Amino acid sequence: MIDQNQRRLQPIAFHAVQFKDTFWQPRIELVREQTIPFEYLQCKETGRIDALRLDWKPGQEPRPHIFWESDVAKWIEAASYSLALHPDSALDALLDQVIALLAGAQQPDGYLNVYFTVVDPVQRWTDLRDAHELYCAGHLIEAGVAHFASTGKRTLLEIVQRYADYISTIFGREPGQKRGYCGHEEIELALVKLYRTTGDEKYLRLSQYFIDERGQQPFYFEQEARERGTPGFFGGAFPERDAQLVAFRQYNQSHQPVREQSQVVGHAVRAMYLYCAMADLALELDDPLLVQACERLWQHLTTKRMYLTGGIGPSSANEGFTTDYDLPNETAYAETCASVGLVFWAQRMLHLDCDSRYADVLERTLYNGVLSGISLDGKKFFYVNPLASSGHAHRQEWFGCACCPPNIARLLSSLGQYMYSQGDAEVVVHLYASSEAQLQVGEHALTMRQQTQYPWDGAVRLDLELARPASFTLKLRIPDWCTDPVLRVNGTTVDITDSLERGYARIERTWQAGDSVELDLPMAVTRIHAHPSVEADAGCVALQRGPIIYCLEAVDNSVPLQQLQLPANQQLQPEFQQELLDGVVTLHGSALAPDLAAWENHLYRAGKPPMLETALTAIPYFAWDNRQPGAMHVWIHETQ
Amino acid sequence: MIDQNQRRLQPIAFHAVQFKDTFWQPRIELVREQTIPFEYLQCKETGRIDALRLDWKPGQEPRPHIFWESDVAKWIEAASYSLALHPDSALDALLDQVIALLAGAQQPDGYLNVYFTVVDPVQRWTDLRDAHELYCAGHLIEAGVAHFASTGKRTLLEIVQRYADYISTIFGREPGQKRGYCGHEEIELALVKLYRTTGDEKYLRLSQYFIDERGQQPFYFEQEARERGTPGFFGGAFPERDAQLVAFRQYNQSHQPVREQSQVVGHAVRAMYLYCAMADLALELDDPLLVQACERLWQHLTTKRMYLTGGIGPSSANEGFTTDYDLPNETAYAETCASVGLVFWAQRMLHLDCDSRYADVLERTLYNGVLSGISLDGKKFFYVNPLASSGHAHRQEWFGCACCPPNIARLLSSLGQYMYSQGDAEVVVHLYASSEAQLQVGEHALTMRQQTQYPWDGAVRLDLELARPASFTLKLRIPDWCTDPVLRVNGTTVDITDSLERGYARIERTWQAGDSVELDLPMAVTRIHAHPSVEADAGCVALQRGPIIYCLEAVDNSVPLQQLQLPANQQLQPEFQQELLDGVVTLHGSALAPDLAAWENHLYRAGKPPMLETALTAIPYFAWDNRQPGAMHVWIHETQ
Ligand SMILES: [Zn+2]
Ligand SMILES: [Zn+2]
Repeated sequence: MIDQNQRRLQPIAFHAVQFKDTFWQPRIELVREQTIPFEYLQCKETGRIDALRLDWKPGQEPRPHIFWESDVAKWIEAASYSLALHPDSALDALLDQVIALLAGAQQPDGYLNVYFTVVDPVQRWTDLRDAHELYCAGHLIEAGVAHFASTGKRTLLEIVQRYADYISTIFGREPGQKRGYCGHEEIELALVKLYRTTGDEKYLRLSQYFIDERGQQPFYFEQEARERGTPGFFGGAFPERDAQLVAFRQYNQSHQPVREQSQVVGHAVRAMYLYCAMADLALELDDPLLVQACERLWQHLTTKRMYLTGGIGPSSANEGFTTDYDLPNETAYAETCASVGLVFWAQRMLHLDCDSRYADVLERTLYNGVLSGISLDGKKFFYVNPLASSGHAHRQEWFGCACCPPNIARLLSSLGQYMYSQGDAEVVVHLYASSEAQLQVGEHALTMRQQTQYPWDGAVRLDLELARPASFTLKLRIPDWCTDPVLRVNGTTVDITDSLERGYARIERTWQAGDSVELDLPMAVTRIHAHPSVEADAGCVALQRGPIIYCLEAVDNSVPLQQLQLPANQQLQPEFQQELLDGVVTLHGSALAPDLAAWENHLYRAGKPPMLETALTAIPYFAWDNRQPGAMHVWIHETQ
Repeated sequence: MIDQNQRRLQPIAFHAVQFKDTFWQPRIELVREQTIPFEYLQCKETGRIDALRLDWKPGQEPRPHIFWESDVAKWIEAASYSLALHPDSALDALLDQVIALLAGAQQPDGYLNVYFTVVDPVQRWTDLRDAHELYCAGHLIEAGVAHFASTGKRTLLEIVQRYADYISTIFGREPGQKRGYCGHEEIELALVKLYRTTGDEKYLRLSQYFIDERGQQPFYFEQEARERGTPGFFGGAFPERDAQLVAFRQYNQSHQPVREQSQVVGHAVRAMYLYCAMADLALELDDPLLVQACERLWQHLTTKRMYLTGGIGPSSANEGFTTDYDLPNETAYAETCASVGLVFWAQRMLHLDCDSRYADVLERTLYNGVLSGISLDGKKFFYVNPLASSGHAHRQEWFGCACCPPNIARLLSSLGQYMYSQGDAEVVVHLYASSEAQLQVGEHALTMRQQTQYPWDGAVRLDLELARPASFTLKLRIPDWCTDPVLRVNGTTVDITDSLERGYARIERTWQAGDSVELDLPMAVTRIHAHPSVEADAGCVALQRGPIIYCLEAVDNSVPLQQLQLPANQQLQPEFQQELLDGVVTLHGSALAPDLAAWENHLYRAGKPPMLETALTAIPYFAWDNRQPGAMHVWIHETQ
């Protein structure tokens, strides 16, 4: 593996950045004040916490579910991050309590899963395809790493190390070990985190084993099913599985060895977590085949199978991918977790190859497909994120399968890590937001202050503070949506074209305290068209300004949305509305609507139908469904 | 009831017209030479004919099905019409054989249904909702009437009279009778035909009973199910039925008394057959409430729920209607039988009220939604008629439920009746085709010759031949698709606007042998838009020329059809191609297609996408899927 000190570029710690803006900072606060307590309450009320006492008896309701540890673990992870940003002794104590319950639930051999301890112990490790044991273990490991990073306490870290140690005895290629891997990827990326935190290579090797083994023949899940002789935990719900073996192999990305995969297929969240681990291992093992597989899969996803919002996985049937360009709007699945996973993967790709196309997708997904998943009050969530609605899609407080709410919480509570990367002689700015960051360039500590009204205005000022002058490269991402950026260093304009490197403006100089960089990223209202093969968007246009994708909501528009036509030459005016939706830039202009009087008693008409002018108002997509219920469309019919 | 001699306007006999054109005449020949023998073969091979021997034994395959008589009956009906147009002693003898089998299958009490005689006799009349007994009886009655009208033989007519006599003892409001009616309407219109043929009012009264009783409370089908105590013939297939009582009442139009109905709902074929009987009874009984109900339902169907092709019933779930403006193209059900039924209903509406809007829909449906149901070789059929296909919809030779093929055959074999109506002092021309017709105006016999290249050219010449001069009104339909008709009588132009009456140009004069009328109906290539509430067609245009709706087929167009954009100002040129698809007018012009080179590695793009010019060829919709398989679109994206 690569010596970590030799790495050119590393992510920064999530707590290295303090947001001071009006966009993310209030949302992080909201997650702290509302979402995290609310999600704990949900875990408590649904029995997820008390189940850890292992006192369930047959017949008792609720019966512990195989997923439950993952929800608790993601809550611990989110709560830990939050604690690091904002000391809170009550939350600290609550975490300790829950961790004590986890300690009590851990078996003498290190195993930790309530369902397979008290409900169905004989089935332990018999249904890796469906039973999510290693998936839950992965989330516990991530929680242990996050709790340690946030509090310095080793309580949970030691529990998950014991669990991982035990797992490493069960799985592998030695005689008596199971040659299996999990049907829902997650533990692979968690083990890399555990390795990075503990330095224990055993965890990296176990992750590598899971990744290397996946998709090898004979197919483990099919052998396992034959040996078990029963349909397994969810098998009964999919009687067609045997008839569709290839699709079901693809469902959990076990159809091919991962280094041979070139198409994003199957369950979208599983795919993202797998690709994260592949990128982690590509870096740690310096494995060019893994790098190439990641690049192929990235290219396939982002040029054939991604919604404009960064939503991914169009189909509810498999919670995942279908065919190229199949991106229906109203029936889009686009699970919130899948977009969260895409942010995770994008960050990892950036550290394999500092190319702005990864950060562009990261930003797109964060501001749109992820953020739509949570309501403005922080207490309601979308599991699926359609790009059109006839008015019946609404966020809910919780879900039986509650993966999404804590996934947003852990992402927003650790958002700082996505803003910068740092290396021995460079600092890279990926995202823009008013904030203060503590960075390290080689031996130089550096404070970076950003001032901007991003995402509503693209003027960004960065002020650097250093103890003493230092030579390093500052790279600033020029977003894909910006066509005419202007860069000034200490007031002097710098030619961006000359300095552009893989989408980043590059400034090499000796920096000293008081240096400032101004980057103007003019935010024009842009019309976006989809690839001609995307049938769902044919003849339609979407509106984007800066990183924000817009939508029409019925509450703002008097004409049924599918009847609106936006003339190609119609200018749209942005307007910041402080009082609306916690403060957003809306877009306004004139559109055409059919003159319905001309259609009375006609279902079909010859010739050009008469149109009337009407006002059009668009709001940021992420903010929809926060007012009165009604239709929503991202894609709008365009007329020339 | 109204004295039939007092009727102002009557349909003509199907054999009063001899087609001499190159469009219908070859098709009628094809039905005679190919379709009718082929359909007999299918009936024979699938066991439908031999089942009439009543020698089925338990365990034997195939087991007679409750529908089977209806297929045989529609074949008899088609074969009878054909026989009248073209003497054929072999066919005549074959019909006699099949009728002899039916005679042998008839029970002593008059009952005639193989399934409920040999398979499950105790269930006779216990499942009117699903078991189709009265529906099959209705088709047998229509067959008997047709066989008598075509051959003068009373063999089948007497069988069906005995059956109808028996039915009239079973159903009604007298003590001991069943207060039921059929779940699949059909017998109601058949009984009116039987009344008109025999003059026996009992049959009209029985039809009136079925119509009056339908939808009365308590709901018969629900009572029947309770009394039977089993799910019924198809009940097990719809376990949700009890939870969706209203939808299932609407499914067979028994949700309301028919005179109160104002929305076309439920199974489309059932609805059409019901509305036919309602229109028949409206006329026979001079019942204004039935007239008004028919008009309301017609208005609702044709302004909210009809495809451009005259296809109706968008959903496969109920083989029928859904909600207003819900007209999806690729998933359109639009059963061939439903369009056939719409032609039947339109003709009846014309005789309640001679308004061209009925004939316009009749013509639209005949040339498009009906005709698409049969292949050019007469041996393959569409059951569902989508308006778009990605290439997987193809006509088949036969269907387990084989209602559609013989329904087309009986319509085409009796097509002449739709061309004219006649009254005491008027002749009305509804349709145009080269042909010779024997008409009767009051006491005057009249030969009407049409010469035209319709539907490919709108110039029509009519020559009248009479024994002696006669004063009457000749009415000529001015189709809704024609904006600038020209009318000449004996070479002198007549102002159409002045003479227009409910869509017909009206010429009152004393006609004599050698008089000629020329009607020019210029066929411009017309662009059709759908009502703005039809989401499926938003931003799209369809092409029509004369009565023909066009479509694009992949075989003629090099660009994927959904990527084509037709500029609003692009002229399209018609061209008659003798060698193509048995001779059709195709449309040609220039369209735009995306420059895919500009999209390489892009899924989304800002700004107006570059387009390239490409050739576009459209063919008549009815003729699609007669060459190599591929995509098809009726609705084309339009750009301004
Ligand atoms: Zn989720
Ligand atoms: Zn049919």
